[in-house]
Order: sequence, then structure tokens, then C-alpha cells
Amino acid sequence: MGNSFGHMFRITTWGESHGDAVGVVVDGCPPGLLLDVEEIQKQLDRRRPGQSEISTQRREGDRAKILSGVFEGKTLGTPIFIGVWNEDARGRDYEHMRTKFRPSHADYTYQAKFGIRDWKGGGRASARETIGRVAAGAIARKILELDHGVEIVAYVKQVWELTADVDSDTVTAADVESNDVRCPDQDVAIQMIERIKAARKDGDSLGGVVEAVARNVPVGLGEPVFDKLEADLGKAMLSLPACKGFEVGSGFGGTTMTGSQHNDPFYNAGGRIRTRTNYSGGIQGGISNGENIVIRAAFKPTATILRPQETVDVDGNPTTLEGRGRHDPCVLPRAVPIVEAMMALVLVDHLLRQRGQVGG
Amino acid sequence: MGNSFGHMFRITTWGESHGDAVGVVVDGCPPGLLLDVEEIQKQLDRRRPGQSEISTQRREGDRAKILSGVFEGKTLGTPIFIGVWNEDARGRDYEHMRTKFRPSHADYTYQAKFGIRDWKGGGRASARETIGRVAAGAIARKILELDHGVEIVAYVKQVWELTADVDSDTVTAADVESNDVRCPDQDVAIQMIERIKAARKDGDSLGGVVEAVARNVPVGLGEPVFDKLEADLGKAMLSLPACKGFEVGSGFGGTTMTGSQHNDPFYNAGGRIRTRTNYSGGIQGGISNGENIVIRAAFKPTATILRPQETVDVDGNPTTLEGRGRHDPCVLPRAVPIVEAMMALVLVDHLLRQRGQVGG
Amino acid sequence: MGNSFGHMFRITTWGESHGDAVGVVVDGCPPGLLLDVEEIQKQLDRRRPGQSEISTQRREGDRAKILSGVFEGKTLGTPIFIGVWNEDARGRDYEHMRTKFRPSHADYTYQAKFGIRDWKGGGRASARETIGRVAAGAIARKILELDHGVEIVAYVKQVWELTADVDSDTVTAADVESNDVRCPDQDVAIQMIERIKAARKDGDSLGGVVEAVARNVPVGLGEPVFDKLEADLGKAMLSLPACKGFEVGSGFGGTTMTGSQHNDPFYNAGGRIRTRTNYSGGIQGGISNGENIVIRAAFKPTATILRPQETVDVDGNPTTLEGRGRHDPCVLPRAVPIVEAMMALVLVDHLLRQRGQVGG
Amino acid sequence: MGNSFGHMFRITTWGESHGDAVGVVVDGCPPGLLLDVEEIQKQLDRRRPGQSEISTQRREGDRAKILSGVFEGKTLGTPIFIGVWNEDARGRDYEHMRTKFRPSHADYTYQAKFGIRDWKGGGRASARETIGRVAAGAIARKILELDHGVEIVAYVKQVWELTADVDSDTVTAADVESNDVRCPDQDVAIQMIERIKAARKDGDSLGGVVEAVARNVPVGLGEPVFDKLEADLGKAMLSLPACKGFEVGSGFGGTTMTGSQHNDPFYNAGGRIRTRTNYSGGIQGGISNGENIVIRAAFKPTATILRPQETVDVDGNPTTLEGRGRHDPCVLPRAVPIVEAMMALVLVDHLLRQRGQVGG
Repeated sequence: MGNSFGHMFRITTWGESHGDAVGVVVDGCPPGLLLDVEEIQKQLDRRRPGQSEISTQRREGDRAKILSGVFEGKTLGTPIFIGVWNEDARGRDYEHMRTKFRPSHADYTYQAKFGIRDWKGGGRASARETIGRVAAGAIARKILELDHGVEIVAYVKQVWELTADVDSDTVTAADVESNDVRCPDQDVAIQMIERIKAARKDGDSLGGVVEAVARNVPVGLGEPVFDKLEADLGKAMLSLPACKGFEVGSGFGGTTMTGSQHNDPFYNAGGRIRTRTNYSGGIQGGISNGENIVIRAAFKPTATILRPQETVDVDGNPTTLEGRGRHDPCVLPRAVPIVEAMMALVLVDHLLRQRGQVGG
Repeated sequence: MGNSFGHMFRITTWGESHGDAVGVVVDGCPPGLLLDVEEIQKQLDRRRPGQSEISTQRREGDRAKILSGVFEGKTLGTPIFIGVWNEDARGRDYEHMRTKFRPSHADYTYQAKFGIRDWKGGGRASARETIGRVAAGAIARKILELDHGVEIVAYVKQVWELTADVDSDTVTAADVESNDVRCPDQDVAIQMIERIKAARKDGDSLGGVVEAVARNVPVGLGEPVFDKLEADLGKAMLSLPACKGFEVGSGFGGTTMTGSQHNDPFYNAGGRIRTRTNYSGGIQGGISNGENIVIRAAFKPTATILRPQETVDVDGNPTTLEGRGRHDPCVLPRAVPIVEAMMALVLVDHLLRQRGQVGG
Repeated sequence: MGNSFGHMFRITTWGESHGDAVGVVVDGCPPGLLLDVEEIQKQLDRRRPGQSEISTQRREGDRAKILSGVFEGKTLGTPIFIGVWNEDARGRDYEHMRTKFRPSHADYTYQAKFGIRDWKGGGRASARETIGRVAAGAIARKILELDHGVEIVAYVKQVWELTADVDSDTVTAADVESNDVRCPDQDVAIQMIERIKAARKDGDSLGGVVEAVARNVPVGLGEPVFDKLEADLGKAMLSLPACKGFEVGSGFGGTTMTGSQHNDPFYNAGGRIRTRTNYSGGIQGGISNGENIVIRAAFKPTATILRPQETVDVDGNPTTLEGRGRHDPCVLPRAVPIVEAMMALVLVDHLLRQRGQVGG
Repeated sequence: MGNSFGHMFRITTWGESHGDAVGVVVDGCPPGLLLDVEEIQKQLDRRRPGQSEISTQRREGDRAKILSGVFEGKTLGTPIFIGVWNEDARGRDYEHMRTKFRPSHADYTYQAKFGIRDWKGGGRASARETIGRVAAGAIARKILELDHGVEIVAYVKQVWELTADVDSDTVTAADVESNDVRCPDQDVAIQMIERIKAARKDGDSLGGVVEAVARNVPVGLGEPVFDKLEADLGKAMLSLPACKGFEVGSGFGGTTMTGSQHNDPFYNAGGRIRTRTNYSGGIQGGISNGENIVIRAAFKPTATILRPQETVDVDGNPTTLEGRGRHDPCVLPRAVPIVEAMMALVLVDHLLRQRGQVGG
């Protein structure tokens, strides 16, 4: 269970990392949207491993196929099926994964929960599952752009102890794509890349923070109480592999402020009600207020490292897991398009909900 | 929309702050559970305003009534209705709320979204909505205790810049309740109380962090992919008023570690597979691993302060909101039972899901 | 579980027949709708027992109270709580219900499923549960009327072997209310009333068929595949106590026709595409086509009769259930407003879904 | 929207009739189930067109592929993807479908709802969509058989005016498969086949009724109120193309009985509580009572006929649709495995729900 997300724009992902294919079914996409598979491919290419010298070397073409829901170049309003067939899935040595639980991976919990697991490359728990999210997110962001000019930009804000200085109001997608680490602060980006290379050499891994902004979001998205916009954004991010934390606006940092410092004063900006500061991160009472939505997601250092680790085997016997195989020293750059996709999925879902209940 | 939470143990809350009543309907509670209204009342009393000199002075009895779903002292398996009638709702001066948007409240966004709002005391956006959550949570935690001996303890970890030192493995409910600020670190608790009193005197407010631990959680709760246990816990917390951040296990702090530092080695503890460290916070791959589940929720300083603030009125004209009325300088102590309730609701929902799909 | 209905306009009912109260929470109602409790009361009065000499004599005022979601006479967009407190619930002799399973009632299945049941008057399985549906339906039909001029009229089409001749295109609410049996065919209505009186005298009961029509339904409501409009209408009706069958348009009768007889030819009626016949019952491919939606629901004869019946007690011992207490010889007239309410709930839910996905 | 069905065992179908493929994703299947694609294929073969001289001649291999959720022959507890690639989809003349609305098809309503439609062979509204249902149903029935020995048998009860005499207590799958029309009453079967051949010759089509029985269903499946077992069964059947009616147990026929005739007396059959008659159709109060569940689904005569028909084109101009192409004079035989699949899907979903809430 739990492989679907969204209420009106609902996606269901499927597929194991080393099975035949992975993909997504999108239900609820508005009809009549021009949709070319290359628009989806463009986002998948940003997510794909092996793009640069600092990422994993798994070689996958990750070519998307649309098998339903699009007719003569336009969406039908029926389910859109997008699949990516696995290519690099054969012939590797997964024996250590079969017999030993990799620390801080999902091997043990899947086995304990289901009594069975696909031990090849993490199976369903692999980050390959996010292919479906990115594909669906490409559709979501297109709707948001066309309907309201919404811009979503994510970037690497922090790697290990290195924190970038980025202005979320002005950062562009081009800034993000200007270097391999997808950090728009060029000076810090250079340090991040060096640090990641060092981690690779050490067979170790690094975590960090992705920050994302959505601009031009209409006022009124988000439902009071349980489906607050930040609650759904938080769930979206925390459902990503390796994500351990989420914050919106001032987040944890805002807890050391007083109310008089933190409250965002309203003013009238030529007929549009705005706030002078944006500690709220564009959301008040769970509903977008028209300011930029700013969120951050924390990713732990990747669990796969190339060092010997204490663990147990599937029979519970103590053993040592020898590091081997490929390894991605830092997933943060590749997490950027995934975070953008999840943000788009949440926003478009709430856009359709708002349209349904309130109209407009 | 969005007033329900949970898939198998599903709650729906209703009610405005100054309407006739607030409450909850619980659908999916297992039958045959002994349930006395006083068990619910006990938790509501912990949430109630006016418990101590550091909280708001709104005087409410907050007496729970069960109107359905319980028969001769036991749950029927049918919807459990719990309501609390508002008492302190009349005769106050809400005029400033009617005409002016309070900064960082939900006044503006509700008005913009719905074209109408109940301006008395925040209406649906008021923290009074959480009464239903706490009532339902009291049932959830009883199921968890009876079925698996699960213990849930939350406490104030931080107020403003003051951070407590608490051992989540050993902290008890009694420790938490031993002072007004619900912080088990007695030395820091004294400082917190002084700081809160100062903020009250200033007409200002403070934020902070609530930490919560669940012990004895069975292995296997949580669904892969979108309904990961941390994703649902995150959504639960971020759906609380004033919550701006969430983390599990090492959270944001873990991002500065390397993988070799952060991975939790497995070992065999007398037949039970355990981890030597718990940076994972008891959840791996979205599924509980049997270690303590540890989460933190960040709450911004309360938006209601007793100081003049820049804002606009409902017609968009610039104006000043004069501070007046009652004011809660720090909601953290009262957030403790609410965080516990939400944690219990997520865990019991996943317990029933697991039982349904996998059995056991 | 299973106490909620609808996707965008979602209702949750609660309450046992002889508990403190029964009611409904409506989530997703559009904001800004003028709503007076008397509009709800008017429909509840039509459903109430004891309206005429041919119905049960249970005396209930069934006075609705709105406790949330309406402010200064208008809906807020937040959950609308409507409750009816039970009045006639005390002091009767339910002993036979406690110890013996009434044939064709839900006594046995509830006991077997839940291991417990509220044996007073049927508990949750009582038709009193439909109070919440009728209350919510009153809101739904108001939205439909205001937005699209949709008219919903149900009536008793058949009692026992007596079948009325009614033109669904022209029948009015006034026609329906013109006699106690709510059958617009006045001649047959007289026979029905006589037959019901005879059944009452015999301590026996009668079933029948309610037919309902919705006129002025916009084209395009209903979702392909599982949430076809007739599928949701069917579920709505079959979720009513005692309903054993459902059909739309030609229904079972249409199975003896050939395709060339049954197909509804399209023609252009002054710019609007219409069909010459309406065997489809206003729905094609699961989607409304703008013609009148015509459905029928079959209700079995009421299980409560005043005659001795073979049964077993709660310990499985053979016994005889002596008929006693009040008895409703034919629920059909009171089912009329309930069927209308369910039809309205389905239509408004699909209206909001359509608006959300497709706009307009 | 609306392309998913089920709460705990949830299927999502996708695909247009003449697109690349059709299929299903099954979420919530219990792990560890032995599953071979041939078990699915066996059911798909029963559904496939062109099996006999009385069905349509569309030639499709309809070969199922499982792309995820099964590992080393067992289900993983993760989503099971099953796809069938379309083979016979090219090169035909669909021009008349593009420009003219076929009477009583979904052409017009899809166009009106979505503003676009896949006009090749009905697109999403085609009966090809049921491939995914049958594939998922094959898994569902296997679970039911293994866990409780549940047997599901459907058969053609009626074609046109010809009604079979079948004992639902004893009919076997072999009886059903013993002739082309899947009617276990051999004498009537012969008449049905003759009648269907005549209809084919006339270019006309026939409707009828499929009856289905589920034996050995455990007591306690079904949720009170909205998700009553008959309500979900009804929705399941009414979501099938061409289904216009549904009944359970005595159904519409039972409306002419009196309560004293219709009530099913309880008795103790060697320790198991049973009913002497089964007018209830195995469901009381929405919950299975352990007796055979008996339902009937009415299918209208197929809309596709090979005769000229009055209609309008997409611009609203009056025109005549000339009959051409292939045509299935009676879908009833092929509906049999589809009805069985839907029944299995509903039962397994309620089995998992029951296990989750109540245990056992």
C-alpha cells in the first residue's frame, strides 16, 4: 500500500530497481494539455545517474515511454501511463545484498515487514522509484506554468558543512544548472564539488539540504487542518528516500525569534496585499498567501558506502559488509529535480482541489 | 476539504473556535475496546488553556462528551463521536479581528480562499481545532499501549534559544509533567519559565521545539514510497497550527555527518536485530525498525502578540493592529499532548494497515 | 470503517439509533452558500417517522442543529456539523433484541463481525442513520439547484405488486407530496395505502420500488471507469438499509430489447445535442449526457414484523422471536426523501470533481 | 479521475483501446503469494474476444506481462504491474468514429466532458479496459481461495428473453465453461446460441443478465453504512461497460413478497448459525452472513450494431451512421469472467479491511 499520492491529481508509482521497468500512472490530469514525451524526458535526464563526475556511474538511458492518456499530442483526461524500462539491471553481483542487511538501508525493515524482499539493488526502496515522480512532476509543472506562470526552482543549499548563499527570490533554473552540484552560489559550489570528490575517494558519502522556491503561486491553495499546504509539501519531501527533515519559511531557525520579530506585516502593494517579510514561507494557516513558497528538505548522507561495516546477515548472524560496487557519494544534485517534481505535484493537486470546491 | 486524517483509523474534526462546539468523529476504531470518557478527558485537560501561569487565560472546561460508538463501556467498531461545547465564546470584543488581518494569522488567507471567514477568534484556524485530535489520540494511544505496550512521550526540547538536555530513551511522562513548561530538564525548565514570563510581560511570544519518542513500536509499521512512516508523521505535525518544521532521527543535524558516521550498524541483541546507534530515528526505508522513533517539531512564536503591528484592513487599507485581549506567550507546553496525540494517530493507523495487508 | 461517502463533497455520518444523537459532518461544501437550518429541517421532516397513519409511530421531533461550518447564515467552506438528538430512546423493552437475532436484520452479522453490538433498536444499522444523509443531501440539492437549476424528484413507483404509472419527465414534488404514500399516480396510491393498512393489520410488511429523476443535469458529470455516475448512484442507493437492487434507464427491463431497439438516436435540438429516446437513463459511458437521469431502487419488505419467527438466540439456541413493539409496514414513502438526498450527494460530488479537473 | 478501485487492495487501470497497451497496477496485495503469470493469462483468455463463433472477431493474443511486484515467483507486497500490449490496433478504418457520435456509446459524453477523445475504437470507454480488472481479479480470487476456500462462479442467466434455470448452490466452473454461451442450463444455452447467431446475422445485438455466486465467504465482510458489501458489489458491477442494473439476493423480485415470506429464519446447523432461506443473498446489514452471496448484473444490448442509425456528427449536424466493421452480438459470455473478477476484488478488499480493523 501507499504507492499513490494526491487527491485530484493522483499518481501511482510502481517498479523495482532491477525489475523490468519502473513508472507511474497519473490519474486526474486535465484534458487538452499539449504534452510531448520530450518534456518529460528533459526532467528525467536531470534526475538520471551518471550525468557528471560527482554522481553514481550507473548507466541508464532512462527513456520514458507514454503508453496511454495522450492522443494526437494532447492529454485525454484519462490515466497517463509513463514507463521507463530498466537497462542496466543484469549480471551484477548482488550476493552481498541478498544475504546481508546493509546498514541504514531498507533491507531489514522490508524483510521484517513483508517476509520477502527484492534484494537486487534495493528493489522498491531504491531511488529509481523517483523516476515516476519526476515524470509526473513534469506534467504538473507544465500545468502550473501555463495556468498561473508558477515557477519552481530548487537547488543545493548545503552539502555537509558547506552552506550556500542563495537569494530565493531571484535564483533561476539556469543558475542551478550552471554547475555539476546544482548550487547557484558558485564559490561554495566549487568547495562542495571538492568535498564530494574527497568523499568518493574515501568511499564515504555526504548529506545536505535542498531548498526550493515556488513563485507566482496563486493565493488560496491549501486546505485548512490536515491537508495544509505545508503538511502536504512536508509529506511529499519526507516520502523521498534519505529525507530526514523538512521546513517551510523560517523553519527551525525561526524558533529562536520572538513573535514581534517573526510576524510578517501586511501592506498594500498597489492593490495586492503582500507581506513585508516572508518568515511564513508563503503559507499562512495552511494556505498560500501569494508570497514565494520556500521550503527546505534535509537528506542524510547516502547509506551506500565503500567501507567495511558491522551488520548481521539474514539469519541474524554478526558479519561484516564489505564495501563494493558503485556508490554515489552525494545524492543532493540529483535530488534537485525530484524536489521540484514533488513540489509541483502538491501544488497542482491543491490547484485542482481549490478549483473544485471554491471555483476560479 | 482536508478535515480528515488516516486511512484505516480515520478521524474527521469539525468546529470553529467560537462556534457552538468542536469535536471529532473517529471511524475505524477496533471494536471491544474498553473506553471511558475520563481517559479522553485526562488528555484534554493537558491541552486545555489556563492550566498554569505561563499559558493563556482563556477559561474553558473543555468537557468531552461521547455521543456514539461506545456501548456499555466498550467501542462498537462504529464511528465514535466526541464533542466539546464551547463555553467562553461569548461577549468578547472581536471587532479588530473582523476588520483587520492579524499578521501571520490565517485571517487573510481564509478570506482570500473562501471569500468569507469566521473572524471570531480565528474560527477554524484556531488551535481549538486540536481538541478533536487530542481526543482521538487518547483512543489511539490506548490501543497502542494495550496491543504492543507502545509508550509515547513528548516534551519541550527548546524554547527560544534555550535547549534542554533530555534522554529520549528514559524520559517518563512523570518527568514531563513535573513542571509547567513540560521540559524534563529541570534546570533549563526554570530558565524557560522565566523567559516565557518575560515575553508575557513584553506582550511578545516565543517559539521552540517539541521532541517526541515512541518506544516499543513493533517492527514493520509504515508503507513504502508515499506513506512512509516519517512522511505521515511529518504531515501530522506540519498540520498543527504554527508548526514550521519537522525532523526524524538525526534530521537537519545529520546532514553534516558522513555516511560512515551516520549509518546505524546492525547487531544481534539476544535474538532481536537491533542497531548500535539510532540516527535513523527508528525508521528505515519508511518502515519502523523496532528502535525508538524520535521526531522533533518546530513551532514558530505565536502570532498573537500584544503590541501594535502594521497590517491592512479587509478593504486593503493600511492600518495598525493594536495588541489587545488575551495572549499565550508560548504554546509549546500545550503542544506536548497534541504532538503525542498525532504520533499515536499515525502509529495506530499504520498498525491497522499492516494488520490488514500483511496480517499479524 | 466505511462511514464516509464522496470525494470532493464528503459526508461522514455517526450515531446509533438509541444513543444520544445521530448526525453528519459535511466536508468540502463550497463557501458562501446561504444556508438556513430550516431548509435542512424541511427535508428531515419528510423523512421523520410518524408522519402519517401508514408509517411507524416512533415519535421523534428530529430537530436538526448546526454546530459548525455556517457563519452569519452562510457556509464557511469548513466542515458543517449537523446533529439530531434522540428523544424517544429510553425506557422501552429491547430485551428480545438483546438476546435474540431478529431474522433478516443486522443483529447477527454485526455481532459476528465486531463481537459486540448495540442491540437497542438496531444501533448503527437502524434507518435512523439516514438522518445525516438527508441533512447533507439538503445542502447538496441546494447547490445543484442554484448552480444549474437541477431538479431531483423521487416517488414510490411500486408497493408489493402494485405499480404506478408516472411520467418522470413531468412529475413534480407537489405531485409526490399529494398523498401519504408519495405515489403520484393517485389511483394506484389509493390501492397502495389500502394494501399497507392491510399489512399493518397483519403485522406484516411490504417492499417496493422508488424511482427518481434528476432534470437539468449538466452534461459531463461522472468519471470514466470505476466512478461512473451510475456506479456511484448505485453504491449510494445500495448503501441504504433494505435496498436490494438498483437500475438506471432501461435497467433489467432493457435486457430483453435488441440493440437496434435500445440505442438512443442523437439529434440536434436547436443547437443542443439530445437523444430521441432515453433508455440510457441520462448516462452514457458513465457520464451524464444532459437527458434526465432516471434510476430505480428496490427495497425489500421491512424485516421487522409483528409475527412469531424462528430464530436463534445469541448463544445459538433455537428460539422463537415474538413480534412486539412498533412496526413500519412499508418504508417506501419515507425512503423517497432519502433517495433524493443520495442522488443529490452523488451529483454534487461529481459536479465539484468535474469543476476541479476540467474546469467550468 | 476515477480509475482506481478498492481501499486496501487497490487497483488502478489505464490504457486506451487502440493505444499501445492497457493494464493495471495492484497496490496492497499481501506479500509472499505464489503468483505465476499463467494464472492471470488463464482468466484473460476467458475474457478475450474471438474465442467462439458467437463473439466478436477482434484478434488479440492479450498476453499479460508482469513488470513489477513479483520476485522469484512470489508477490513482494509492492505494486504489481500487469500490462497487455495491443496488437490488433492498427490500420483499421475508424473514420466514422472520428466524425460521428455512435448512439448509446460514450463518444458524445467523453467529447462533451473532456473536449477531446480518443475516437479509435472507443478509447478509454472500450471494454478493453476490463483486461486490467480481470488480471487483478485473478490475483484476488487466488487469495480468497487460499485463505478461505472461497469459490466464485458466474454464468449467463439470461439472454434476451431466454432465462436459464441454474442452481447457484451447486453450479461449477466446469458447467459454465461447457458451452460457448457460458450458460449452465444446457437446453437454454442452445436456444441462446441460436438467438445470438440470428442477431449476428441481423447485424443486431442482445443484452441479458449475468448471475454470480460466492461460496464459503467468511462471516463479517462488509462495512456498515456506505461501504456495505452489496454497495461495493453494486458499484463494481455498475462500473462495467453496458451494465444497467444490479441486484443482490431477492433483488427486484423480492419487492412483491411480504416480510413474513421474505425474512430468512435463523437456525443452528451443527454449531454454525445459518438461515433456512437466502433471500438476503448472503448479506445482512451490509455484512456477509456466511450464506452464499448471490448477485445479478443486467447488461444492455451492445451499442455497436451493423445497421444504419440516426445520429449527429461532431459539429452537431444530422447524419446517418452506417453499420460497418466487427460487431459482438452479445457480450454476456465474455462478461462472465469480468463479473467474477469484480466480485473477487470487492471480497478481497473487504477481507483485508476486516483483518485490519477487527483482526482475524
